Amino acid sequence: MAKVRMGAQPLIYPMPVFLVGANVAGRPNFLAVAWGGIANGEPPMVSVAVRYQRYTHNGIKQNGTFSVNIPSADLVREVDYCGLVSGAGVDKVTACNFDVFYGKLGNVPLIEQCPVNLECRVVHTLDLDSHSLFVGRIEETHISEDCLTEGKPDVGKIKPLAYVTSPASQYQVLGEVIARAFSCGKGLQVRKQP
Amino acid sequence: MAKVRMGAQPLIYPMPVFLVGANVAGRPNFLAVAWGGIANGEPPMVSVAVRYQRYTHNGIKQNGTFSVNIPSADLVREVDYCGLVSGAGVDKVTACNFDVFYGKLGNVPLIEQCPVNLECRVVHTLDLDSHSLFVGRIEETHISEDCLTEGKPDVGKIKPLAYVTSPASQYQVLGEVIARAFSCGKGLQVRKQP
Repeated sequence: MAKVRMGAQPLIYPMPVFLVGANVAGRPNFLAVAWGGIANGEPPMVSVAVRYQRYTHNGIKQNGTFSVNIPSADLVREVDYCGLVSGAGVDKVTACNFDVFYGKLGNVPLIEQCPVNLECRVVHTLDLDSHSLFVGRIEETHISEDCLTEGKPDVGKIKPLAYVTSPASQYQVLGEVIARAFSCGKGLQVRKQP
Repeated sequence: MAKVRMGAQPLIYPMPVFLVGANVAGRPNFLAVAWGGIANGEPPMVSVAVRYQRYTHNGIKQNGTFSVNIPSADLVREVDYCGLVSGAGVDKVTACNFDVFYGKLGNVPLIEQCPVNLECRVVHTLDLDSHSLFVGRIEETHISEDCLTEGKPDVGKIKPLAYVTSPASQYQVLGEVIARAFSCGKGLQVRKQP
């Protein structure tokens, strides 16, 4: 299969969709972020990349805390809005009609309408060229009761969004379950080792 | 909506599916990784979290380079296999029938069957508790020619996998496109600012 070189491109598929939250000047603000992921297992940590110029960046630096809120598909317009406008100019919480609550850390704003909310305390900050990569220890996880099945998170009820980067620049829902992890590979008919 | 506290959990949705590659003792090895994401925009960087005990960890530390290969859905069994077994005991390249090629950096193994391949040079390593978080500058991006449309990456042809964490522990394909990014939020009927 022929390969084409594209130069240095941030091409990974799929990306998650987070609403990253922090109090800025004492008021809650949220930013849409697709650049981040789990950074450590025990204890659980998550990374988020935030451009220096973003209003939320100030809040994370000041407080040393942030939230990761996982929106469901029915919040897609609010998510996109939180990536388009700056909290320096508008109150996004009011604009999006978000109900904000606070949890264990006290100063980390969380969105009630998002089915999953992580409260994070910054344990490392890598100030890279265009973005700070904030690595946060996940201190508490909240989930909407109606997204549980037998007391456990149910992705079919959470209905998360995936972001597909440019040139598509689109939000997709998750599709068909095609295999079980830590399972389907056991059936691989491995070639004889040389 | 009632919320339930779950303690500290690495609950993000969706996670990507990477095959992270490195030469170990001079031979190519690949590890399935769902914990990572883009870390910086200009220049592009990507993070991957790799448990200290994994065989690939040694290779990344030794070479200061790694690859991120994005598998398509038809490689789901090979992906799972690369998460189940260790390269210390088997030659996964032979077992999975991968065709390996090398690109710009010379010592970074890439999988021809994966539609997208990133060659990365480690620029930061955060040695966290259970995992090292390797932040790599993306030096070159390769894409299979048959996954391009008018010269650009086409996610419909790439057919990436999403990983949904436990308790589901499953691989899903991407589903319906529900909205355009940097666009659909413009139509939000914002509430009057207070």
